Amino acid sequence: MKVLGLDPGYGTLGYGVIEGPIDKCKLLAYGAIITPKTERFPERLRFIGQKIIELYRDFGPDEIALEELFFQKNAKTAIMVAEARGVILYECESFGIPLFEYTPLQIKQSLTGYGRADKKQIQEMVKLLLKMDKIPKPDDAADALAVAITHLQTNKILGNFKI
Amino acid sequence: MKVLGLDPGYGTLGYGVIEGPIDKCKLLAYGAIITPKTERFPERLRFIGQKIIELYRDFGPDEIALEELFFQKNAKTAIMVAEARGVILYECESFGIPLFEYTPLQIKQSLTGYGRADKKQIQEMVKLLLKMDKIPKPDDAADALAVAITHLQTNKILGNFKI
Repeated sequence: MKVLGLDPGYGTLGYGVIEGPIDKCKLLAYGAIITPKTERFPERLRFIGQKIIELYRDFGPDEIALEELFFQKNAKTAIMVAEARGVILYECESFGIPLFEYTPLQIKQSLTGYGRADKKQIQEMVKLLLKMDKIPKPDDAADALAVAITHLQTNKILGNFKI
Repeated sequence: MKVLGLDPGYGTLGYGVIEGPIDKCKLLAYGAIITPKTERFPERLRFIGQKIIELYRDFGPDEIALEELFFQKNAKTAIMVAEARGVILYECESFGIPLFEYTPLQIKQSLTGYGRADKKQIQEMVKLLLKMDKIPKPDDAADALAVAITHLQTNKILGNFKI
C-alpha cells in the first residue's frame, strides 16, 4: 500500500511517499513545497492546492495521512496554517481515497513508543525505518514521512483514524 | 458595482449580494449555506467550495468582501472555521476578481460609527440601509450583508483592504 504523508503548512508543506507493508517499507519520495512569500495569501493557497493535485497525480497514493493541527501560541499563524490545511483537506477529499489524521502525540508514540520524544529522536527513527543515509531534510519532510510511517504502523496495531 | 459579502463558517456560511453605489444600494440576494452535520468534515469542505462556485456563477459579483476571522475561545472550533475559510479564499481566488477582508471592528464602525455596537444594532442598520421590511435571517446572512455594505462604504471613505 502506497501512503502519502502530509505535514500541513502555508509557508512550507512537507510531503513523503512510502510503500508498505511496514516491515518492508520502501521510501518513494519526500520533499517540501515552499509557497512564494512575495505572493498574496489567497494566491499561496492556490499554489498549495495545485501542488497537492500534482502530488496525487505523480505518486498515485492509496491513502493519505495528515498531521493533525495542534494549537499554536501565535493565533494569527495558527489561523493561516488552518486555512492552508482546509485547502489540503479539500483537494485530498476530491481524490476519493481514504484520509487519516494523527496527532503529534500519536506520531511520537508510534515511532518511538514514547510520547515525549523530541524532534531529533523522531527524525532518527524515520531515517532508520526507511534505511536512509542521513536524516531527511527539511524538518517538514521528515514530519511528513513520520506521519506516513505512523499510518502504516497504526493500520496494523491500533486501528484507523479516518477523517 | 456588485459585491458578494461572505461570513465564513463550516456549519453555516452566510452570504449577501448587493449592488452599489452605497447611496443607491440595492439588495440582490442573501441567505445561508448549511453544511450537513452528518457528513465527514472533508466532505463538508467540498460542499462549501462547490457552493462558493455556485454563488459566483449565479450572481457574477465584481468584488468579494469577507469577514476576517477573529480569534475564538474554543481552539477546535477556531481551527475548523479557519479550515473552511481557507477553502472559501481558495475558490474565491480562482475567480480572478478582487478580494477584500474586514475585521468585526471595521464592520461595526462602518455601519454604526461605533466600534462597540451590538449585533442587534448592526442588523437594524443592515435593514435600514437595504430598505428591508425586517431584519435579515439567519444572523450569518445579516453578517454577510454587513460586510458587503462595509465594503461599499469603505471604498469611498477609507481606501481598500485588499487581500
